[in-house]
Amino acid sequence: MPVRTRVAVIGAGPAGLLLSHLLDRCGIESVVIDSRTREQIETTIRAGILEQGTVEVLAETGASDRVLTAGQKHEGIELRFGGEGHRIDFTDTVGRAVWLYPQHEVLKDLVAARLAAGQDLRFGVTAERVEDAGTDRPRVLARDAEGYAIEIEADVVVGADGSRSVAREAVTGAYGGYFREYPFAWFGILCEAPPSAGELIYGNSPDGFALISQRSPDVQRMYFQCDPDTDTEAYDEGQLWEMLQARVPGTTLHEGPIFQRDVLRFRSFVAHEMRRGRVVLVGDAAHTVPPTGAKGMNLAVADVVLLTDALRALLLDRDETLFDSFAETARQRIWKAQHFSWWMTSLLHVQPGASDFDRMRQLGELRTVVESRAGSTYLAEAYTGWPLPGTGHH
Amino acid sequence: MPVRTRVAVIGAGPAGLLLSHLLDRCGIESVVIDSRTREQIETTIRAGILEQGTVEVLAETGASDRVLTAGQKHEGIELRFGGEGHRIDFTDTVGRAVWLYPQHEVLKDLVAARLAAGQDLRFGVTAERVEDAGTDRPRVLARDAEGYAIEIEADVVVGADGSRSVAREAVTGAYGGYFREYPFAWFGILCEAPPSAGELIYGNSPDGFALISQRSPDVQRMYFQCDPDTDTEAYDEGQLWEMLQARVPGTTLHEGPIFQRDVLRFRSFVAHEMRRGRVVLVGDAAHTVPPTGAKGMNLAVADVVLLTDALRALLLDRDETLFDSFAETARQRIWKAQHFSWWMTSLLHVQPGASDFDRMRQLGELRTVVESRAGSTYLAEAYTGWPLPGTGHH
Repeated sequence: MPVRTRVAVIGAGPAGLLLSHLLDRCGIESVVIDSRTREQIETTIRAGILEQGTVEVLAETGASDRVLTAGQKHEGIELRFGGEGHRIDFTDTVGRAVWLYPQHEVLKDLVAARLAAGQDLRFGVTAERVEDAGTDRPRVLARDAEGYAIEIEADVVVGADGSRSVAREAVTGAYGGYFREYPFAWFGILCEAPPSAGELIYGNSPDGFALISQRSPDVQRMYFQCDPDTDTEAYDEGQLWEMLQARVPGTTLHEGPIFQRDVLRFRSFVAHEMRRGRVVLVGDAAHTVPPTGAKGMNLAVADVVLLTDALRALLLDRDETLFDSFAETARQRIWKAQHFSWWMTSLLHVQPGASDFDRMRQLGELRTVVESRAGSTYLAEAYTGWPLPGTGHH
Repeated sequence: MPVRTRVAVIGAGPAGLLLSHLLDRCGIESVVIDSRTREQIETTIRAGILEQGTVEVLAETGASDRVLTAGQKHEGIELRFGGEGHRIDFTDTVGRAVWLYPQHEVLKDLVAARLAAGQDLRFGVTAERVEDAGTDRPRVLARDAEGYAIEIEADVVVGADGSRSVAREAVTGAYGGYFREYPFAWFGILCEAPPSAGELIYGNSPDGFALISQRSPDVQRMYFQCDPDTDTEAYDEGQLWEMLQARVPGTTLHEGPIFQRDVLRFRSFVAHEMRRGRVVLVGDAAHTVPPTGAKGMNLAVADVVLLTDALRALLLDRDETLFDSFAETARQRIWKAQHFSWWMTSLLHVQPGASDFDRMRQLGELRTVVESRAGSTYLAEAYTGWPLPGTGHH
C-alpha cells in the first residue's frame, strides 16, 4: 500500500525541511524522506552565511529560535586587495545584514522542530525514481535502509534532493541544464584558533583568493583558491598557514591546529526546467552556485518561500496560477544570484592564465566598487539578499 | 637651429590641442605638431560623447564656446535587452549628464581657438623620434611635408600622438604595455535620416550588440557587433538595416541612405610607463579603450587636466612633486576607465562561443543593474565620469 500525502518531499536539507515546516503552518501535510541518517545530516559542514530574509523566515516562523541568539550578526565584509582592507558596510549602505550561523545548525533546529511537530520525516530512505509527473498523482519510489520498497503518492512531489537530484530526471532529464565549470577550487580548513577578524575577509592577491571566515570562538573556517585536483594532504600545516597568510597581506591570522581539510570543487548550474506537471525542483536540485557570495542555501530558502505560496493556492484554494508561474518567478532571482556568485568569483579569484591586463583590470574593478558608495551598495544589496517574494510567513 | 619652446606637443588631437590651450592660460608656451593636415584632423569621424567634466573644461576655459550650444545634453541612456528598453537616468541617479558633440567638432573649436591665440601649431609635420628623455632638454626630431628636418628642443616633450605613438618608444619601448584584444568589432554606418531616439540606445540581443546614436537632426551614426574581418561591402543597405533592427527589438529605426561604412576593431591597452624623464604620454598614446562606454576622448582630457597642473608646478614654480607623481595619479583613473570600458563591452556584446549559461548570466546581470538604483547609479557614475582632479581651470 503506498503512503499517501499532500506533498512528498525528497531531501531533508534546508530546502526540504523548511518547506515541510512552512506547509505545516498552512495546514498542508507532507512526508519528507532522505537517504542519509539524521547524524549525517546534522554534522556535514557546509555554508554559514544567512541573508537577512533567510533569518527572518527562520525566526518569524519558529523554524529556528536559536539563529538570532546563537548566530552572529555581521554588518559588513572586508574586501582585501593590494595589501589593504576595504570594508563594505551593509548597515550603512542598505540597512540590512547577514548572520553567521552554520548550515548544520540550521538543520539541527529544523530537524528538532519538525520531529517535535510530529512530521513524517524518514531518514535512511533513498528515492530511486519519480513517476507520473504529468498526472495529479505523482509518486516517489524509494527504498528504506533495510532494502524494502516504499511508494509515496502525493498531490505534488518536491525534489529538494541536492545537486545529485533523483527528482531532476523526472523534470528535465539527467543533464538538462545551463552549466559552467571553474578552473579552480577552494582548499578549506577547520582549525582550533580564536577568530582572526570580526567579519569575513574576502582576499584577492597575486597568488589567488582567500576567505577568512569564522565558526565559533574556538573554531575557524578558512579557504584559499587551489587547483581542482589538489590533494588534501599536499601541504603540511606550516605551508597551509603560509599560503593563507600570503593571500590576505596586511592581516595577521591567528593560527592553531588544523583538524579538517577539504577541497571544494564548484560550478554554476541551472536546470532548464524547475517543474514538470506536479513535480517541482527547489534548491540545489534546481541550481548550484559557486560558494563565493554565499548564495546557495539562501537561494534554496527563496525557492521554498515562493513554492509555499504556490502550493497553498494550489492545494487549499484550487488556484493554479502561482503554481504555473512558479518556475518563471523563481528564475528571476536565480539568475541574479547566479550572476552575483559568478561576479564575486571573477572579482576575487585569479584566473589561471590571466594576463597582466586582466589582473590590472580586476584591481581597477575592485577599486571602483569600494571607492563608490553606489558600487558598494550594489554589492551589499546582493550579498544581504534581494527582498523575498510576498512571503506568506508574516 | 632647433626650435626652442617650453613644451613640445606631438599630436594635434583633443589631448595635444587642449594641453596647449590650458598651458597658454598659465602662460606656458608650447609648440604643437601633427603629421596630418588641418582638414584631415577636422573631418575624421570619431567618438561623440563628452563627460560632464570634459564639457566643463572645454566651456569654462574658453576652449569651445559651441559645446554647450551646438552640443546636445543627454540625461540618460537606454539599455535594451530581452526586447525591452530600460533607461539609466543620469540626472536622477548622479545629478550629472553627458553631451553629444562629435570629436571633430571639438577639434574644429580647438584648432580655431589655438590659431586665434597665435599658437605655434604646425600641420603636416611628422615626428620621427624623441631623444634625450633622461635630460632636461628632450628633443623631438621631425620632418615637414616637404621633407625638411625640424628639431624641437623643449623643457618637456608630450606625446599626444595617438595609439601609434612615436613618443611612446622613448618612454616605454614600442610594445611595453598591458594589452587585451576582443574577438569582435563594430560595423559603423552614417546615414541620412532623422534620429531614431532622443538618447543613445545600447542594445543587447542574441545576435549581438548594437548602438543607436545620433549625430545631427539629419545624420545618424549606428553600429552593430561584427566579426573583426568583416568587409565593409559585405552587406547591402537592406541587410544592414535588417541587422541593426534585429539587434534592438522593440524599437523602430528611422532608415535612410547609408553614405559611410567602417569596421572599427578595438582593443584595450595601457602603456607600462607614462613618463620617462621629461617625456610624458597622454591620451591614446598611453592607453586605448574599447568604444563601449565612450571613455577614450574623456580619458585624454582627464590626463591633460592633470598634466597641466604638473607642468605649471614644474615649469613655473620649480616644484617637481606633481610631475613626479603624474603617472601614478593618472593611472588610478585609467584603470577604472579600462575596467568600465571592458565591463560595458562584456555586459552588452555576445562573446563568440558563449555558452547558454553565459548568455543567461549576462541577462541576469543586465536585469540586476537596471532593477537596482545602486546598480544604475554605479553605471551612471562611470558613464558621466568620475570627478576630474583638482582642475586648475577654475
